[in-house]
Amino acid sequence: MPRVPGRQFLNIPGPTNIPDRILQAMHRPALDFMTPEFWEIQVECRDNLKKVMKTENEVMVFASSGHGSWEAAMTNTCSPGDTILMCETGRFSESWAEMCRAFGLNIETLENDWDRAIDPTRVEDRLRADTKGVIKAVAVVHNETSTGMTHDVAGVGAAIRAAGHPALLMVDTISSLASMDFRMDEWGVDVAVAGSQKGLMLPVGLGISAASDKAFEATKTATLPRKYYDWNEIKTGDHGRMRFAGTAPGHLFFAMREGLRMLLDEGLDAVFARHQRLAEATRQAVRAWGRGNGPTLFGKDEAALSNSVTAVTMPDGFDANAFRGRLLSESNVALGGGLSRLSGTVFRIGHLGDLNEPMMLGCLATVEMHLKRQGIPHGVGGTDAAMAYLAEN
Amino acid sequence: MPRVPGRQFLNIPGPTNIPDRILQAMHRPALDFMTPEFWEIQVECRDNLKKVMKTENEVMVFASSGHGSWEAAMTNTCSPGDTILMCETGRFSESWAEMCRAFGLNIETLENDWDRAIDPTRVEDRLRADTKGVIKAVAVVHNETSTGMTHDVAGVGAAIRAAGHPALLMVDTISSLASMDFRMDEWGVDVAVAGSQKGLMLPVGLGISAASDKAFEATKTATLPRKYYDWNEIKTGDHGRMRFAGTAPGHLFFAMREGLRMLLDEGLDAVFARHQRLAEATRQAVRAWGRGNGPTLFGKDEAALSNSVTAVTMPDGFDANAFRGRLLSESNVALGGGLSRLSGTVFRIGHLGDLNEPMMLGCLATVEMHLKRQGIPHGVGGTDAAMAYLAEN
Amino acid sequence: MPRVPGRQFLNIPGPTNIPDRILQAMHRPALDFMTPEFWEIQVECRDNLKKVMKTENEVMVFASSGHGSWEAAMTNTCSPGDTILMCETGRFSESWAEMCRAFGLNIETLENDWDRAIDPTRVEDRLRADTKGVIKAVAVVHNETSTGMTHDVAGVGAAIRAAGHPALLMVDTISSLASMDFRMDEWGVDVAVAGSQKGLMLPVGLGISAASDKAFEATKTATLPRKYYDWNEIKTGDHGRMRFAGTAPGHLFFAMREGLRMLLDEGLDAVFARHQRLAEATRQAVRAWGRGNGPTLFGKDEAALSNSVTAVTMPDGFDANAFRGRLLSESNVALGGGLSRLSGTVFRIGHLGDLNEPMMLGCLATVEMHLKRQGIPHGVGGTDAAMAYLAEN
Amino acid sequence: MPRVPGRQFLNIPGPTNIPDRILQAMHRPALDFMTPEFWEIQVECRDNLKKVMKTENEVMVFASSGHGSWEAAMTNTCSPGDTILMCETGRFSESWAEMCRAFGLNIETLENDWDRAIDPTRVEDRLRADTKGVIKAVAVVHNETSTGMTHDVAGVGAAIRAAGHPALLMVDTISSLASMDFRMDEWGVDVAVAGSQKGLMLPVGLGISAASDKAFEATKTATLPRKYYDWNEIKTGDHGRMRFAGTAPGHLFFAMREGLRMLLDEGLDAVFARHQRLAEATRQAVRAWGRGNGPTLFGKDEAALSNSVTAVTMPDGFDANAFRGRLLSESNVALGGGLSRLSGTVFRIGHLGDLNEPMMLGCLATVEMHLKRQGIPHGVGGTDAAMAYLAEN
Repeated sequence: MPRVPGRQFLNIPGPTNIPDRILQAMHRPALDFMTPEFWEIQVECRDNLKKVMKTENEVMVFASSGHGSWEAAMTNTCSPGDTILMCETGRFSESWAEMCRAFGLNIETLENDWDRAIDPTRVEDRLRADTKGVIKAVAVVHNETSTGMTHDVAGVGAAIRAAGHPALLMVDTISSLASMDFRMDEWGVDVAVAGSQKGLMLPVGLGISAASDKAFEATKTATLPRKYYDWNEIKTGDHGRMRFAGTAPGHLFFAMREGLRMLLDEGLDAVFARHQRLAEATRQAVRAWGRGNGPTLFGKDEAALSNSVTAVTMPDGFDANAFRGRLLSESNVALGGGLSRLSGTVFRIGHLGDLNEPMMLGCLATVEMHLKRQGIPHGVGGTDAAMAYLAEN
Repeated sequence: MPRVPGRQFLNIPGPTNIPDRILQAMHRPALDFMTPEFWEIQVECRDNLKKVMKTENEVMVFASSGHGSWEAAMTNTCSPGDTILMCETGRFSESWAEMCRAFGLNIETLENDWDRAIDPTRVEDRLRADTKGVIKAVAVVHNETSTGMTHDVAGVGAAIRAAGHPALLMVDTISSLASMDFRMDEWGVDVAVAGSQKGLMLPVGLGISAASDKAFEATKTATLPRKYYDWNEIKTGDHGRMRFAGTAPGHLFFAMREGLRMLLDEGLDAVFARHQRLAEATRQAVRAWGRGNGPTLFGKDEAALSNSVTAVTMPDGFDANAFRGRLLSESNVALGGGLSRLSGTVFRIGHLGDLNEPMMLGCLATVEMHLKRQGIPHGVGGTDAAMAYLAEN
Repeated sequence: MPRVPGRQFLNIPGPTNIPDRILQAMHRPALDFMTPEFWEIQVECRDNLKKVMKTENEVMVFASSGHGSWEAAMTNTCSPGDTILMCETGRFSESWAEMCRAFGLNIETLENDWDRAIDPTRVEDRLRADTKGVIKAVAVVHNETSTGMTHDVAGVGAAIRAAGHPALLMVDTISSLASMDFRMDEWGVDVAVAGSQKGLMLPVGLGISAASDKAFEATKTATLPRKYYDWNEIKTGDHGRMRFAGTAPGHLFFAMREGLRMLLDEGLDAVFARHQRLAEATRQAVRAWGRGNGPTLFGKDEAALSNSVTAVTMPDGFDANAFRGRLLSESNVALGGGLSRLSGTVFRIGHLGDLNEPMMLGCLATVEMHLKRQGIPHGVGGTDAAMAYLAEN
Repeated sequence: MPRVPGRQFLNIPGPTNIPDRILQAMHRPALDFMTPEFWEIQVECRDNLKKVMKTENEVMVFASSGHGSWEAAMTNTCSPGDTILMCETGRFSESWAEMCRAFGLNIETLENDWDRAIDPTRVEDRLRADTKGVIKAVAVVHNETSTGMTHDVAGVGAAIRAAGHPALLMVDTISSLASMDFRMDEWGVDVAVAGSQKGLMLPVGLGISAASDKAFEATKTATLPRKYYDWNEIKTGDHGRMRFAGTAPGHLFFAMREGLRMLLDEGLDAVFARHQRLAEATRQAVRAWGRGNGPTLFGKDEAALSNSVTAVTMPDGFDANAFRGRLLSESNVALGGGLSRLSGTVFRIGHLGDLNEPMMLGCLATVEMHLKRQGIPHGVGGTDAAMAYLAEN
């Protein structure tokens, strides 16, 4: 394919832009992972991951994608036939449910419109009704990447406690961690699932699990077979360091060390505030476009619109994928497509990871320029609205 | 830790030296993996992996270490209670067996001294005796990294055919692939297991599976649960491209594309010949050292000594790990330690991947220099013997 | 200093953005520059430089900045007391004149307002008046980086020929080469001066000279002392390859090879058209801002406004450097400042090198956002105007 | 050209191996060099250069090779017709003299056999005889790269003082700086000339000058024209930072910052001791080879043999360049050739920069292996002798 000059604007919701400092850290020789040099690296990574996840729990890292960490959550805590209450959020709650079913788990879906936030009181109601205690775990996707809606994990945690139900709380933080606040311990999360390629700003290749004592207790009776993802085999051992199934993924740890340092140097609150500002600027732009029968925000709960990705519904009769295709091939801006039932009608603007004002404005202005170039109806002034918001906030 | 100047000599048996060209290929922005640009990359990778594995079978790649590929081999083809005939070769046949047991498989070990090659006729005898057909698969580690012995996979394949037994042949090629000849189709291998960080010269993070039609047929009745590693979900789909559980590991594919090109540009036969020469030079050195009551070759079958790693037994009373420790801290040469029952008595010299004569001679001369510096008895002239071999061959 | 997240928008008029491919090419070991491997590299570089400069003349490369190449132009062709007719264009014609004076040359300045293009007929008139032939050379800066005006080198070449004057035509192409059309041979240029860090997209460190036969003829009588920059010592020698004063700058040649390949792969005409589009989009934005008593285009000759850099005059009472300072520290956008007499009243937007639409729109939108944030009067709709231009052209 | 696998052993006397940390530091975007971020970098570089040069004098850096720094030494301090007493050391004293002649200086050569150290008493005698004070400067190459001889700069400094002569002492430290002790102030050096690509472990592209107050005093009367290399234009200005002729070479400064930190972290004494050990190991090897009518040390003054490069004389009838050619093409070891009158009869082993024991032993063992492979007479046991030396020292 011909080269489009300049740097690509990677506004998909992951993988995200990898900072130079992280790429530099990976540009080095391999290392014997059985040496103190590597142990220092992974101890630092684990300790800093705990800070980012706001937990004192055990944090474990696999050579895998985030989906491997999903699988770990289930096989370490469940037995065939266990019931999982899966809060419906979008394509990724569906996908996680499919994985559960492959392992013989019973999925009970708490149905929910994809363009709405889940309601924790419905979780509480359902758990109160579960007088026989068949529900083993409640599973929630914190930030649903396919819809751009953030769900109230704190509320779900409170609901479980209010219902006095023993269910584990399992949370997919793949597209929220390090982009928006996540408080594992305060919110009562038992299993947190994360991946490397979103807010952590790393290449794909690390699956991350954190598990509460209650979750570890569940491993004792969980009969699903597991080895590669067996938490008890990789949790911190006698020598105070992480273990791995096979050779440790050294280069990705070199990267993670830098990524975590960068996040903590910037400060988590500053990171979250930056994501909020850039997300709101994006929403301001989309709202302006929508006023001219143009693209609109997919999500209907304003308060739950995601700070890491915005899903946008195309006007009737216009194909989101054709629109994205020209943005990429002509202008080197990569947007996400609609997933599953949203394919063709929705495009998604990722605004998570290593981003700043000119990167975001460059994306929005190019999207708006293409609305015009491609003859798609839209209200004018989207980029102006984003600029006005950023100028004043 | 203080920096030891100069470049580390990474003579562990993996991860191996990563060529600059591969590191360069990873030093780039992330990519939307749902674009033609990435599809081209993974199609090329898959096609070239087939050449390296000498197979027309389906080849699949996971974000995982090689251990994930072990797990895939078992969960895709077996059901709980199935019997696996595991040829004992060393620490890695033990470890693979442990994984099988975690999945409820029955392991029958074909016992074998770790310092000897396995005897295919014993496999044939055992299979002939299995008149009820309880053995589901024969598992062999092609090159046992813990002992430095290469095992006769072609012979085992022939033994299965000679016995007329339906068992699948599963082979761990993690430390052999791309360092010594492996012929999946010609040898009748049903499942080949590989990883990225040895002969392929890549960072840790890719698990590779190849599976024959017979192995795919076994997936239809295999009841072990699987999702992340489910071959049928990731094998080439309708659009002629690989699929992945979750986000594709883009950066490792950028690396793999370069690594495979380098191997095929050099030519597989040239790659294997290079490994053989450097391995034999290493063995010449060790034999010379041994003549003075010094370190000796661990392996007893000369013909089966590995071309990717040499295990060396320390003289009685000398600790291999202490020896290695000073080599690393004083001279920046990293050797492998003895694993499992060999810890402390054996060290291992890796000679696989991106190596040449001066790299190998530099390693051997420094080892010999340390034998002297550390007061370990040894015959003189090890490096001289290696030099003589290389000068003449 | 605290890190500003995300990638810096480097919109200074050089050094410019270095593409990943070029940085990758430099991330490699040093090379013995006396080997065929390096000779191939520099032969390719020289041949491709000729294509970019549109010349059959000898092209020579120094380890130096562009200022070194200025010095080479003078010391190779002139003798103390020679008169140079320096066309006044801005800070860089001044600076080049200062260099000439340091070497004992007599500078006659063809005065010109900095915000106007030079008029070739005035060169012709002056040369016709030089009946004694005291003018040794006419010196022109093709694109004056300090003012954002492009000057008519073809016209000056024609003027010299029309006057029938023997003066050499010396042209500084530092901020024009590979961003706008430069035709050394067709335009009758005798000495072209270039540097690596602008349109060639390389780090600072290479000075480039091209010299006509007439210029080489002048070396025979030129008595200014020279050695490091002596063209006759570094021009292509008997073995068909470049020579260098001392060790060849290998890493910068690794970079240059890639940069030249990228330019020729894109196609020079496409490169120039891309620069023109992004420059015009920038001008559209500035014109809109200016309609509200805001910043205006510095240059007064519309037809001569540069396609590589736009100089913008701040409204009275507002300091350009304070404005730039906040753009950099708050938003990670780097603009150029005003030089010499323009310091404080002018800022400059570089739009040369490896740029595309979203990069340029991101810059312009952030500048406009800061006009608002910093309370600087301006007409609205600058970014909109740029978007409209790009959408339709 | 076909790729020779593995890493090249770069045992030429410069450019030297560039550590990963330095290459990483250059793999980053360009920077506006008129920002505090760059000023911090160059202030740190200048301060650390002073530590490495052991001087309180002004240190200045050019975008140039080391030859540019030679030129700066002369044009800043001399006038046409001035006499320079050039101590003959080898190819580089010749080359420096040629440069001086190009600037109209009068060269008086203090003749000396290339295989001997210069005798400071001869300098003293000559200066005492210069009763008219025609000698403007004494020029010495500290470490003559072409012969592998180190010359007694401290002795020459003392000789000048003993003679009570006003001559400036100019020293080329290009292949000594940061590899062996150089004490500008203590030894009374007035002008030190250095380059980036040897002991400093950087790519080619920076010329370095340090100048004493006496040297700066000389600039006031020196009439040689200069601008690019004019010390007074680039010495530390009012704002406490370096200046540059044109755009500052940012990427090379990013590199230099890391290189200087690495040197000072290791400790200069440790750096020098490391060079001495590896050099002596090299000499031990060559002496052993020579005992069999093989290659011998070129230098005749044992005490003056260089710790950064060893020149080796081939046995009669054998061509050094043919020998080197096969080492490079077959085994990826790059040695230096003989320069000028030594071409074909001498090869040179560089042992400076980022080197350690296995790198050096790998080089020596491969050289010895090739002596055997190529049928060149030599005493056995060269590598053994090097190993023995390193084991015990």
